[in-house]
Amino acid sequence: MRYYPVHSGYPPYTRVNQAIEAAFAEHGRGGVRMPSKVYVGLVENGDFRTMPAYMPALGIAGVKIVNVHPNNRARGLPTVMALTEIIDVATGVPQAIVNATELTAMRTGAAGAIAAKYLSPRRTVTLGVVGAGRQAEALVEAIAATLTIDEIRVWSRTEKSSEAFAARYADYNAVSVSIERACDCDVLNTTTPSRKPLIMADWIGEGTHINAIGADAPGKQELDPRILTGAEVFVDDPGQAAHSGEINVPIETGLYDTGMIAGTLGEVVIGKRGRSSPGAVTVFDSTGLAIQDLAIAALIIERDDGYDLPFP
Amino acid sequence: MRYYPVHSGYPPYTRVNQAIEAAFAEHGRGGVRMPSKVYVGLVENGDFRTMPAYMPALGIAGVKIVNVHPNNRARGLPTVMALTEIIDVATGVPQAIVNATELTAMRTGAAGAIAAKYLSPRRTVTLGVVGAGRQAEALVEAIAATLTIDEIRVWSRTEKSSEAFAARYADYNAVSVSIERACDCDVLNTTTPSRKPLIMADWIGEGTHINAIGADAPGKQELDPRILTGAEVFVDDPGQAAHSGEINVPIETGLYDTGMIAGTLGEVVIGKRGRSSPGAVTVFDSTGLAIQDLAIAALIIERDDGYDLPFP
Repeated sequence: MRYYPVHSGYPPYTRVNQAIEAAFAEHGRGGVRMPSKVYVGLVENGDFRTMPAYMPALGIAGVKIVNVHPNNRARGLPTVMALTEIIDVATGVPQAIVNATELTAMRTGAAGAIAAKYLSPRRTVTLGVVGAGRQAEALVEAIAATLTIDEIRVWSRTEKSSEAFAARYADYNAVSVSIERACDCDVLNTTTPSRKPLIMADWIGEGTHINAIGADAPGKQELDPRILTGAEVFVDDPGQAAHSGEINVPIETGLYDTGMIAGTLGEVVIGKRGRSSPGAVTVFDSTGLAIQDLAIAALIIERDDGYDLPFP
Repeated sequence: MRYYPVHSGYPPYTRVNQAIEAAFAEHGRGGVRMPSKVYVGLVENGDFRTMPAYMPALGIAGVKIVNVHPNNRARGLPTVMALTEIIDVATGVPQAIVNATELTAMRTGAAGAIAAKYLSPRRTVTLGVVGAGRQAEALVEAIAATLTIDEIRVWSRTEKSSEAFAARYADYNAVSVSIERACDCDVLNTTTPSRKPLIMADWIGEGTHINAIGADAPGKQELDPRILTGAEVFVDDPGQAAHSGEINVPIETGLYDTGMIAGTLGEVVIGKRGRSSPGAVTVFDSTGLAIQDLAIAALIIERDDGYDLPFP
């Protein structure tokens, strides 16, 4: 058994996007075994989630264990930390434990990049960014590996954060703007922990693609429900999206119904579904899939570094 | 983060039984958060199970990942192997990874010992043993720490195994016998991977307590369903028992109903439920709880040994 702290560096997004796209394609073909993630609440709004899966096509199985502790920032700790355990498919022997904290942000960014690759109205895009944390960075970098970014319009609740974000991505003509202005774009990425709609329907122009990333637990939402009812909504996984994705609150309040889902990102990748017209608004409702975690862990465990651990 | 291969040895059953009894008591008081375990099928009837839980009273949270690969014995590998990850409740930081292979057998044996402590008709017992593998050994050793064993009657599908088992426990007057004779006892432990009833109702005398341990997945059963309908059945967890415990097949075939369950072992431990009369047959339907895994891991991670691992 090997432990991989991944101190030797992370793979480039060109490789990560490719691996994540292949995982979604397998999901679209129905070729994966993946129960919905399981939540266990802890103290002070903290929780941890257990995400098991098996991808026969890659011969890889395992589980990611990931926490979300909103009060961690005040402690100088990341809000989200994760480990992925990989087990041998044929024997069940634990093969690897991978530090998956950074990989979690990367595989989520890559999912947004794949969604944008297939659903963006154009190849050269103005990127809207609402929420300027680690996940927003990963989305910019993953999308930059698949589309050309001509401008970034970023808004954050704290102006200091959006200005720092704009400075960091000056090469992409990033500017700190109002939230309404950030929504005037081709591809909008929302990554806030909001529990009420931040993005109003009137702000979203025809043809916009939205990566709705922030909602990942019951009660969370970022979009005016009228955006969802007027858009073509693609989810990563219907069960998880209904439970904890952007659509979870509108379903709870009766404003949205799972029958309105246009398809899964996997179905989009294999060409079974897609945007119906250039003017349609499309939404990718991302909750995060265990198969994304397996696919990115597979890029790490092919390396020689890591710590050998005795087992048993 | 520390990795514990547990090479420094295992705690004695006196301590393990105490820890497991405390965990069941918390469960009986409704003081734990524990979703049902999640199964993912792999190749050749192999699978792995993910078992998350949080015990506020102990301030411990985490998840056990355990495989079951029936073909492993032919490869010279254990059928069951496990790791438990413990995370810090307040911050979500991964604290420890514990080799839980042997601990899994021990915590299951301890659950049987606690069930026997509360449900056995007497303190000095003749022990029946059906199935003579690792789990049967753990049950004998755990029960010996709480009751006095005056004789062991052991049966195994292969006589060589039951004779070796009898020799190993000669101090307890262990003898290799027919399966019917093994059932003539005070406390019967069944630990086979059977998918059809092995133990007939006619063989079970008044007042017998049965630890039904073998059934741990849909389709598995060891007992004639007439034993269950005539007995007082206590489960570790109603949801898991209905899904994968001894009662799962009779429920599927309409011979048993969850409304017939007499209570949980946790309720027995806190005195809320118990055997109704000395003559009643009692059954403990064990599927294995994540809180047992946390409770036994807590005994290991209080030690100083183990490997320091960098995280992140």
